[in-house]
Amino acid sequence: MRRLPSFLALALFAFPAWAAGSGVVGENLLWLALILMSARLFAPLAQRVGFPAVLGELLLGVLLGNLALFGFHYFDQIPRDPIIAFMAELGVIVLLLQIGLETRLADLVRVGGRATLVGSVGIAVPFLLGAFVVGPWLLPGLDRNTYLFLGATLAATSVGITGRVFRDLGKLGTPAAQIVLGAAVIDDVLGLVILAVVSSLVQVGEVSVGEVARIIAEAVLFLGGSIWLGRKIAPHSSRWLAQLDAGPSMLFAQVLATGLFLAWLAHVMGLAPIIGAFAAGLLFEPLFLKDFETPRIVREIEPLVQDSRGLMDRLRPILTKHTGHQHEHMIEPIGYFFVPVFFVLTGMQVDLQTLADPTVVAIALGVTAAAILGKLAAGIFAGDAGKWVVGWGMVPRGEVGLIFAMVGKQLGVMSETMFSVVVIMVILTTLITPPVLTWLLRRKD
Amino acid sequence: MRRLPSFLALALFAFPAWAAGSGVVGENLLWLALILMSARLFAPLAQRVGFPAVLGELLLGVLLGNLALFGFHYFDQIPRDPIIAFMAELGVIVLLLQIGLETRLADLVRVGGRATLVGSVGIAVPFLLGAFVVGPWLLPGLDRNTYLFLGATLAATSVGITGRVFRDLGKLGTPAAQIVLGAAVIDDVLGLVILAVVSSLVQVGEVSVGEVARIIAEAVLFLGGSIWLGRKIAPHSSRWLAQLDAGPSMLFAQVLATGLFLAWLAHVMGLAPIIGAFAAGLLFEPLFLKDFETPRIVREIEPLVQDSRGLMDRLRPILTKHTGHQHEHMIEPIGYFFVPVFFVLTGMQVDLQTLADPTVVAIALGVTAAAILGKLAAGIFAGDAGKWVVGWGMVPRGEVGLIFAMVGKQLGVMSETMFSVVVIMVILTTLITPPVLTWLLRRKD
Repeated sequence: MRRLPSFLALALFAFPAWAAGSGVVGENLLWLALILMSARLFAPLAQRVGFPAVLGELLLGVLLGNLALFGFHYFDQIPRDPIIAFMAELGVIVLLLQIGLETRLADLVRVGGRATLVGSVGIAVPFLLGAFVVGPWLLPGLDRNTYLFLGATLAATSVGITGRVFRDLGKLGTPAAQIVLGAAVIDDVLGLVILAVVSSLVQVGEVSVGEVARIIAEAVLFLGGSIWLGRKIAPHSSRWLAQLDAGPSMLFAQVLATGLFLAWLAHVMGLAPIIGAFAAGLLFEPLFLKDFETPRIVREIEPLVQDSRGLMDRLRPILTKHTGHQHEHMIEPIGYFFVPVFFVLTGMQVDLQTLADPTVVAIALGVTAAAILGKLAAGIFAGDAGKWVVGWGMVPRGEVGLIFAMVGKQLGVMSETMFSVVVIMVILTTLITPPVLTWLLRRKD
Repeated sequence: MRRLPSFLALALFAFPAWAAGSGVVGENLLWLALILMSARLFAPLAQRVGFPAVLGELLLGVLLGNLALFGFHYFDQIPRDPIIAFMAELGVIVLLLQIGLETRLADLVRVGGRATLVGSVGIAVPFLLGAFVVGPWLLPGLDRNTYLFLGATLAATSVGITGRVFRDLGKLGTPAAQIVLGAAVIDDVLGLVILAVVSSLVQVGEVSVGEVARIIAEAVLFLGGSIWLGRKIAPHSSRWLAQLDAGPSMLFAQVLATGLFLAWLAHVMGLAPIIGAFAAGLLFEPLFLKDFETPRIVREIEPLVQDSRGLMDRLRPILTKHTGHQHEHMIEPIGYFFVPVFFVLTGMQVDLQTLADPTVVAIALGVTAAAILGKLAAGIFAGDAGKWVVGWGMVPRGEVGLIFAMVGKQLGVMSETMFSVVVIMVILTTLITPPVLTWLLRRKD
C-alpha cells in the first residue's frame, strides 16, 4: 500500500508541474516552513545578545548549511534547490523594493555627488589593493590576470545586508543610508565595468574602450530611463488603475509588479536584479497613489468621531499609516515570508570546511583586511554623514564577490586556493558588518 | 559585447542557484509580474460584466495558454516551468489557509453529519453514473477498468474554485459554504479511496479491504490528529512565541509556517496539500493569539481620544479588524500575490484544441452532464442550507479530475480520446461553476 499512496501523492501534487516532474515540490513546503519559523525564532535570540536580527538569520543558515560536518545531510539539498533559490532571489528583490519605497528620490539626488564619489573610491581602492598589493604580496608568483580578478572580487558591494541593518534600526532616512544606497547603485554599474574589463583582458588580451562605454551607457540609460519614465507614467497609471478598482489589491499589484518587472529588466541589461527593484521602489511617491480609495477604516470611524471636533484630522494620518492600504505596509508580509529565505540561504553558502587550512585562512585574513580598508577609505569621502557608518556600510561583499570569483574560475584564472580565500573574505565581511554597523549606529544615538 | 553581459547576467542572477543552473530564473520575474498585473486587470473587467473575479483570472489563463493557436508561443513555457508551478501550488495552499482561518471549526462540526452525507453521495453518484451509465453508453466496447477510471475522474471535487467564489462574495460564513467545505474534505479522502481501489483493480485485479481501511484510517488520523493536537498546542505556542517577540511578524510566521507544514504533511500522507492548509487554518482561533501585543495603532490613538468617554471602546474593534496585526489580514497580501498564479495557470492548462473534434465534444458534453447531475444529486441532501448552491459548489473538478485521468493514462486504461473527454469535462465544470454560483448566491440575497 505504501507504494500506491506515494505514487498518488506525487501525482496529486505534481499538478501543474507534471510536465516538469519536480519531485522536491512537496519538500519545499517543509523547507519554507522551517526557514520561515526558525528565522523568526533566531532573530529575536540574536537581538537579545545585542546582535542585529539579520545576523541571527545568517548564523542559522551557517548552522543548517554545515550540519553535514556532523553527518546530518538532510539540509544539503536546500541550497541546491532552484525553487528555494528563486524564493531567496524574490526575498532580496522584495527587500530592495521596500528600501526603495522607503527612500525618497529627492534625498538620494541630494547626496548624489557624494554617493558617486564614495562609490567610485569604494570600487577603485579595493580593486587596486587586491590587484597590485595584497594579491602579489600574499600569493606571489601567479598570473597578472589572477590578481586582477582578485581585485575585482574585492570591488563589489552587496547592499542587501547593509540595507537590512539600516532598515531594522529605522535608519533608512539618514544621510549615511542615502549615501550607501546611492554608492551601491554606482558600485553595481562600476563592478560590471570592472568585470567586463578584466574578463576582456583574460579572453582577448585587451580592453575595448567602446565596450566599456557601451556598458556604462546602457546601465545609465536603464537606471535614468526607467526612473524618469516611471515617474512620468506612475501618476497616470495609478489614476487609471484606481478607476478600474480602487481597492488595496490593485495598489499592491501595481507596486509589486513594477518591482518584479524592473528587476527582470535590470537582469536583462546585465545589472543585478535588486538594482531594478530598488529603482522601482523609487518610482512611487505617496502622492502618486492618492487616487486609491480612502481606507475603509477611515470611512468606518468617521461617523463615530464626528462629534469630537478636530479629532478626526489628528486620527487620519495615524489610521492611514497603519492600515493595509499603504503600499509599504502591504509589501511587508511578502518581505516577512521571503526575506529570511535570502539571508538563511546566504548563510548556508558558507562552507566552514574552507576554514580548515591555516595557510588559506592566514591569506584570507590579509585579503579581508584589504577588503575592509578599501571600503573604509571610501567612507572618508562621506563627510559629515558619518565616515565610519558609510565605510562599514559598504564592506559586505555577499553574493557579488562570490559570483565574480565564479566567473574567474570559469575563465580559468582563479585557482581553488584563491577561490577559498575569496569565500572566506565574503564570509567575514558579511558576518562582521551587521554587528559593527549596529554598534556604530547605536553609538551615534 | 552582447556575449559578455548575458553570460555575466546569468552568473549574477544564478546565485545561489548556480548548482541547479536554472536559466529561466530571470524570466520568472517577468512572468510573475505579468500574471500579477494582468490578473488584477482582468478580474474587475470580468466583474463589470457580472462574472466573478476568479472567472476573469481563469479566462486570462485560457487566453494566454492558447495564444500558440495564433502562432504566438512565448507563453507556452510558463505552465511547464516548475518555479511558476510551485508558486501556483503556494497560491492554492494560501487560499485554503485563508478559507480555514475564516471558518470556525465549531461551525464546520455543526454541519459535519450533513457534510459527510453530501460528500459521500457526491462521490458515489458521479462515480456510478460515470462507470456504469454514461461510460458504457457513450463509449461502448471498452474495458471495464476504463469505465471505472472514468467514474473516478467524475467523483473528485476541487474546492479551490468554489472556495474562492464564496470568499469573493463574502459568503464563507453561510451554512452552504460550511457544508461544501466539509464535503470537500470528505471527498478528498473518499476520492483517494476510490483511486486506490480502482488502481488496485487494474494492477492486481482485486481490492484489498485492509488497504482501503488503512487509507481511511491514515487520513482520519491525520486530519483529526493534526486539528486536535494543533488546537491543544496553539494557545501555548502562541504564548511562548509572543514572549520571544510579540510583533506582527512572529504571529504571521506562526500561522503561515503551520499552513506550509500541514500542507506538506498532508502531501506525505497522500492527501491533497490544500486539505492540510485548510486544517491549519482551522487551528487558529482569535482567542489563541491574544498574547500578541495590542496593535500599535491602538496604543497611538488611545491618548488622543481619552477625553471622549466610551469612544475608544467603540473604536478598538474597528482598529483591530483593519490593522495588519490580525493574522487573516497579514496573509492577505501573500494571497494577492500567489492566488492569481494558481487560477491563471489553471486556465492555461485548458487546451482549446481538444474542442476541435465534434464527436469528442459530443461525448464530453454527455459526460459533463453526468458530472454535474451527480453533484446536484448530492446537493439535495444539504436541506435548508441551499440545495442548489451546495450542489453547484461541488461541481468543479479542477486539477483533481485531470490528475486521476493522468494516473489512468499511466496505468494504460485511459485512451487519448477518453483523456480529451475528461479534459473538456474539467474545463466545462471549472468555467461554468463560478458564474452559476455567483448568480445563485446573489439571487438568494
